Amino acid sequence: MALFVYKFGGTSVGSVECIKAVAEKIKKARDKGDDIIAVVSAMSGETNRLTSLAAQMQPEPSDREMDVLLSTGEQVTMSLLTMALHSLGCSARSYTGGQVKILTDSTHTKARIREIDDTNIKKDLDNGRVVVVAGFQGVDENKNITTLGRGGSDTTAVALAAALKAKECHIYTDVDGVYTTDPRVEPKAKRLDKITFEEMLEMASLGAKVLQIRSVEFAGKYNVALRVLSSFKEGNGTLITYEESEMEKALISGIAFNRDEAKLTITGVPDLPGIASKILCPVADKNIEIDMIIQNIAADKTTDFTFTVHRNDYQQTKAILEEVCESLEAKHVTGDDSIVKISIVGVGMRSHAGIASTMFKTLADEGINIRMISTSEIKISVVVDEKYLELGVRALHNAFGLDKE
Amino acid sequence: MALFVYKFGGTSVGSVECIKAVAEKIKKARDKGDDIIAVVSAMSGETNRLTSLAAQMQPEPSDREMDVLLSTGEQVTMSLLTMALHSLGCSARSYTGGQVKILTDSTHTKARIREIDDTNIKKDLDNGRVVVVAGFQGVDENKNITTLGRGGSDTTAVALAAALKAKECHIYTDVDGVYTTDPRVEPKAKRLDKITFEEMLEMASLGAKVLQIRSVEFAGKYNVALRVLSSFKEGNGTLITYEESEMEKALISGIAFNRDEAKLTITGVPDLPGIASKILCPVADKNIEIDMIIQNIAADKTTDFTFTVHRNDYQQTKAILEEVCESLEAKHVTGDDSIVKISIVGVGMRSHAGIASTMFKTLADEGINIRMISTSEIKISVVVDEKYLELGVRALHNAFGLDKE
Repeated sequence: MALFVYKFGGTSVGSVECIKAVAEKIKKARDKGDDIIAVVSAMSGETNRLTSLAAQMQPEPSDREMDVLLSTGEQVTMSLLTMALHSLGCSARSYTGGQVKILTDSTHTKARIREIDDTNIKKDLDNGRVVVVAGFQGVDENKNITTLGRGGSDTTAVALAAALKAKECHIYTDVDGVYTTDPRVEPKAKRLDKITFEEMLEMASLGAKVLQIRSVEFAGKYNVALRVLSSFKEGNGTLITYEESEMEKALISGIAFNRDEAKLTITGVPDLPGIASKILCPVADKNIEIDMIIQNIAADKTTDFTFTVHRNDYQQTKAILEEVCESLEAKHVTGDDSIVKISIVGVGMRSHAGIASTMFKTLADEGINIRMISTSEIKISVVVDEKYLELGVRALHNAFGLDKE
Repeated sequence: MALFVYKFGGTSVGSVECIKAVAEKIKKARDKGDDIIAVVSAMSGETNRLTSLAAQMQPEPSDREMDVLLSTGEQVTMSLLTMALHSLGCSARSYTGGQVKILTDSTHTKARIREIDDTNIKKDLDNGRVVVVAGFQGVDENKNITTLGRGGSDTTAVALAAALKAKECHIYTDVDGVYTTDPRVEPKAKRLDKITFEEMLEMASLGAKVLQIRSVEFAGKYNVALRVLSSFKEGNGTLITYEESEMEKALISGIAFNRDEAKLTITGVPDLPGIASKILCPVADKNIEIDMIIQNIAADKTTDFTFTVHRNDYQQTKAILEEVCESLEAKHVTGDDSIVKISIVGVGMRSHAGIASTMFKTLADEGINIRMISTSEIKISVVVDEKYLELGVRALHNAFGLDKE
């Protein structure tokens, strides 16, 4: 008997039948004697329905009211799942983020969890109840409803698993695990049985979209064992563990990519100490996540500064940069929102040389021009034109032998 | 400049266009310098959609989870209305029942308000904001979400008007006031400019469906001036005041009726002190509202006991009574759920004789058999077979001259 946190995303609870199937899955775990906390997202389609209602009221609704609106999605799912559990004779109780309570900061639409009060949940578990919690949401100190942003339900699940010291946190989704790359791009992609947190972090942040990066960071930080598996198929999914243990570790574990990138360059910036923060702080202040950063030193005591952001944030970032450009008396701001990022990821990289040159040669052989390069201990990322995405991913998947057993 | 509470029911906020129209109405009041608290219901159709989802999970979902589910309806409306107000440049903020907070007891689906914390609302009003509050809902001491039952948004509005000493509480609905009777049954029905609380109470409780009885009781108790008016048409509606002032008060103000009645009789009950409470307490304990009560004394030291309940509660009440019957060693339980109640209401009754006999003679002339009679100071009610409803209402409307100016 152990405690598990199960998280079910939008498609896993997308219909009455799906919710009933989820209830059966939980019931089966209860019958084995396990304690279950179920974290649920809004039914798929519901968030879009609500967002479209909001858009009809106002082009840019206030963040506070969007959070009030969108948080109803999970609240509906959590009560329906609890009813489905009751109908199977399974004792259960539902909680909104505020009821738990999951205390967050006040950054509406992108709030961060500060503290989880586990009193009510513990009491329910002790009384043999399944606890069903609305994902994606919390409350700030003034009882304002907040949401955690993209993939927030994963974050809720991991945070609960950490707070309650669950044995594993299961992320049920519509894929049956983490693959060497996206099978829609490379049909020869293979499911990984295990992957390290570090690798997963690089994979997730680079667009492998199975899990949200903050949940993986969180899981790594609090030693929560994560398992990604399918709501619909049987199988053990992919376990995300602390460190590789196999003797023969593959050089790289997977190819990640991200279609949602945009790059921005500010040229002719005076090359003075503190200039990077003067450029990036105004962007970060708007909670825009900055990804790759490159600074080139020019001859005339000025420098060019390039970085990438999520494509949705491109226009806003550009506007901010133009103000920054003026105040710094820099030259001008350019940008490109039709680029993508492709990365190879693997802890094996640490102990092997020559990985980077294999990557660059493979791309060159296909005639793909590299626009930016960024490296870390366990990954190498390149920015290329959008049109080369599929070609580049397949060439690299083949070059590193990821299609072989 | 004065404070008004505006309450908008489901049809008044039933679409994007309706919500925008409501925002315009509030904006107009703000421009005149009035402070506004807007209480909103779920968009019409939403409660049915949610109830049907619940029904697919479980035939009789738990009351707690139903409250969690249904309370999302008002939460959606309140955020949309707030966005619509923002788009008109009108400062506004939304609150759930729990955020206000509206503290209730723990009787899920039929909770009663215990206390309203007006701190946040007052602060917002002082800052020139419109305050938008979800109707129908509150929280109990343990932060469980509760709902106030049928017409609960009216109750929320009146309770807020009382707590914040509003000048008037406007109930916007799809009718433009209180009529002498339902115009769908008697097309000659006329709108009343004013009606007393007592009359309205009798009208509402007897099925005149414009306002919910608890909200009128509340309004009377806390001296909240209520006005019923149309969301869609201009007009002053009907003001509900403390006492009649006109010199020539009509004998009766209106004909109310209730199609949702069912009657139950327990026969051969030992005629002992305390027997009424032994019969009625188990029913009241289930929060079933009892309406008319009649006790006939029989010759053989036993009595027959008859009362009416809402038709939805008929089966449950019958089951309770059958247990009571056994424990009291009474004879048996009979019932009829195809009856209706028709009532004439008017404070003029107090000072005039002969009203009852006019009523009974009118019904007799139409061949309508009276099954039960109950009277109060300002109303006379009769229970008749369902099929006589329209005929009875029209005959009485005519007999008391309600179609005349």
